[in-house]
Amino acid sequence: MPSGFKASGIKAGLKSSGNLDLALLLAPEGAVCAGTFTKSLVRASCVDLCIDRLKVNAGCARAVLINSGQANACTGKRGLIDSVLATSALAKRLGLDAEEVLICSTGVIGEFIPLDKLIAGLDSLVDELSEQGGSTAANAILTTDLVDKQIAYEAYLDGRLVRIGGMAKGSGMIHPDLATMLGYISCDVGVPVDLWQAMIQRVSECSFNSITVDGDTSTNDAFLAFSAGSRLENDYLDILEVGLKLVAQYLAKAIARDGEGANCLLEVRVMGSESTSAARQIARTVCSSSLVKTAVNGCDPNWGRILAAVGRSGVVFSKNDVDLFIGPFQLIQKGEPVMFDRNAVSSYMQERKRGAYLIDDSISILLKVGNGIGDATTWGCDLSDQYVRINADYTT
Amino acid sequence: MPSGFKASGIKAGLKSSGNLDLALLLAPEGAVCAGTFTKSLVRASCVDLCIDRLKVNAGCARAVLINSGQANACTGKRGLIDSVLATSALAKRLGLDAEEVLICSTGVIGEFIPLDKLIAGLDSLVDELSEQGGSTAANAILTTDLVDKQIAYEAYLDGRLVRIGGMAKGSGMIHPDLATMLGYISCDVGVPVDLWQAMIQRVSECSFNSITVDGDTSTNDAFLAFSAGSRLENDYLDILEVGLKLVAQYLAKAIARDGEGANCLLEVRVMGSESTSAARQIARTVCSSSLVKTAVNGCDPNWGRILAAVGRSGVVFSKNDVDLFIGPFQLIQKGEPVMFDRNAVSSYMQERKRGAYLIDDSISILLKVGNGIGDATTWGCDLSDQYVRINADYTT
Repeated sequence: MPSGFKASGIKAGLKSSGNLDLALLLAPEGAVCAGTFTKSLVRASCVDLCIDRLKVNAGCARAVLINSGQANACTGKRGLIDSVLATSALAKRLGLDAEEVLICSTGVIGEFIPLDKLIAGLDSLVDELSEQGGSTAANAILTTDLVDKQIAYEAYLDGRLVRIGGMAKGSGMIHPDLATMLGYISCDVGVPVDLWQAMIQRVSECSFNSITVDGDTSTNDAFLAFSAGSRLENDYLDILEVGLKLVAQYLAKAIARDGEGANCLLEVRVMGSESTSAARQIARTVCSSSLVKTAVNGCDPNWGRILAAVGRSGVVFSKNDVDLFIGPFQLIQKGEPVMFDRNAVSSYMQERKRGAYLIDDSISILLKVGNGIGDATTWGCDLSDQYVRINADYTT
Repeated sequence: MPSGFKASGIKAGLKSSGNLDLALLLAPEGAVCAGTFTKSLVRASCVDLCIDRLKVNAGCARAVLINSGQANACTGKRGLIDSVLATSALAKRLGLDAEEVLICSTGVIGEFIPLDKLIAGLDSLVDELSEQGGSTAANAILTTDLVDKQIAYEAYLDGRLVRIGGMAKGSGMIHPDLATMLGYISCDVGVPVDLWQAMIQRVSECSFNSITVDGDTSTNDAFLAFSAGSRLENDYLDILEVGLKLVAQYLAKAIARDGEGANCLLEVRVMGSESTSAARQIARTVCSSSLVKTAVNGCDPNWGRILAAVGRSGVVFSKNDVDLFIGPFQLIQKGEPVMFDRNAVSSYMQERKRGAYLIDDSISILLKVGNGIGDATTWGCDLSDQYVRINADYTT
């Protein structure tokens, strides 16, 4: 883990499966934290608590407690009180103010956290804290994920080793009821809180905010990034941000790839629109279209569905400017179909769907919609009959 | 059919299946027509042609030609020329100006209409015109629809018999590539064109614009309504509009019920928001949520998914004001779960899913989100594994 950071994970008995279900990430003294959260108006009280504490403390935070099993959303006042009690009990054991401790919950909506079990587990959770604890923590935050999602990058910058670590969970913007996408980054470079918040906001936009599995947004989504350590010359901040972006995009793509019922990673890049936000709007519309996603599932180079999604995205463009590529193959030029080898495109899709490539494993759709500077990429996955079965057969 | 209107349908050989594929609707002299069309920027040139002709002629139109098999979208200049040639050839046979004839196409995107076959069929299409031709026409406009969609209402208003007829096609806002929702209304009451356009705009909002099957909007969607005949006292126009609304809603619900892979009709009503448009926005978000639709498929009263969809709809409300009902059962009161009989709610859903009721056959979700005057209803369907198979296995 980045210098000074520790983590741990334990089995507190919150999940009926008996798996790891309680995680802790501890940042060194002087840490600042920036967060981005679900925009849902039906958000869990733990999200409210994180937002309030980061605001009141001007971004100073030292620890985040993460429980999996219960989302503690739609649980009214008692849900909020439970979050306060859990963080207070942990703060006491860590010698911190309660306001320096954050909490994220993921699991079933409408269920209370079994607070006695959680609090009974805190002593061993603190005992287990270590610089090698990241992997256990990354497993303790999972719900219906098929794989854990973690990564660490390091580089020499300004004459010293710099480390960025990250972990995430989620296999949809929202799960059946096992809601929530969570992402955590720790970085052992100290960055002034205002700069850090702006960097994390930008990083979030082009990573976690650029994935879509089923278009549904969770009540509990949260991305928290801690910065703590000696500072770098300002000249190095741009390259640090590149590193943060790589970590966040790795995690975001891992979430999309692990989407419910997903067989492949879908990447949609839009260039040439008037602005980046316009490009992102088109890309998200294509990437979340049920008809595009089912075509990808069927390895069908169905450009009609892609153009139809672009057309309804709400962004203004001229259809005569549109070029469309799937992988290296051009299907549309200046708005009209060009001859292409349908079997070759379908094979390109099939190989990626069955996982023939470890690197460059995504099915890539590239759209050029004009000559503007807008450029954005989003990630998603195919829509399979397994997705429907997972979500239809799941009974609350 | 309403007095003075005629229709016909023939097999012109446009569909490889050999089914009926060319329809004609002829309105009496003096008719006016109002239309609402797809907002997609990638729209077919036949839609452009309809919009232009209605504008240039101030709503005067006499006939609409509808071909099924080819959508004639993304077909560039030749596509537009084909639409002009087809309507000119028909106008000549009907003794009309070409500008009085509209055309709608539905079928595969990117394919040209076999124009020689279409034109060769026009003589018999005109010969077949009759007051009993509505049903044949309603069948000739279908593509992958499982059932035809037609209805006629009549009433005595202002001392005379008034008739409204309607037909529609579509089993999704867009089909695999067999795109398009089409709706047609004929009414034997003459209404001044400005009033008629405003009425049809309102009728369209609460019918065709209030359904969603898969969230994808077609390149060719069109709803055309013809008015021709003697006028009514202005006092009767409100009740005429109620009739138009019933016809349009009947057709719209028939489209949702026939959604790809659908097993039931889903009705989502939102009350108490600040405006009707806000209510519609919430209702559409719930009605098109993949997670809500799969829960409906599984007959799972999963209120967490419904609230999560409300929360991300983009409309501002207080979660403490939310009441939620499925059928007659209340699940949420003032934002918090209430005790309910899960088996009873699931049975309510199961009965409607297996079609136990001919009337009141929809699975109904009612949301109250405040004390405002906003009130809107949308219709959709469940999301099934058949939907995925239909769309993934379909190869262009």
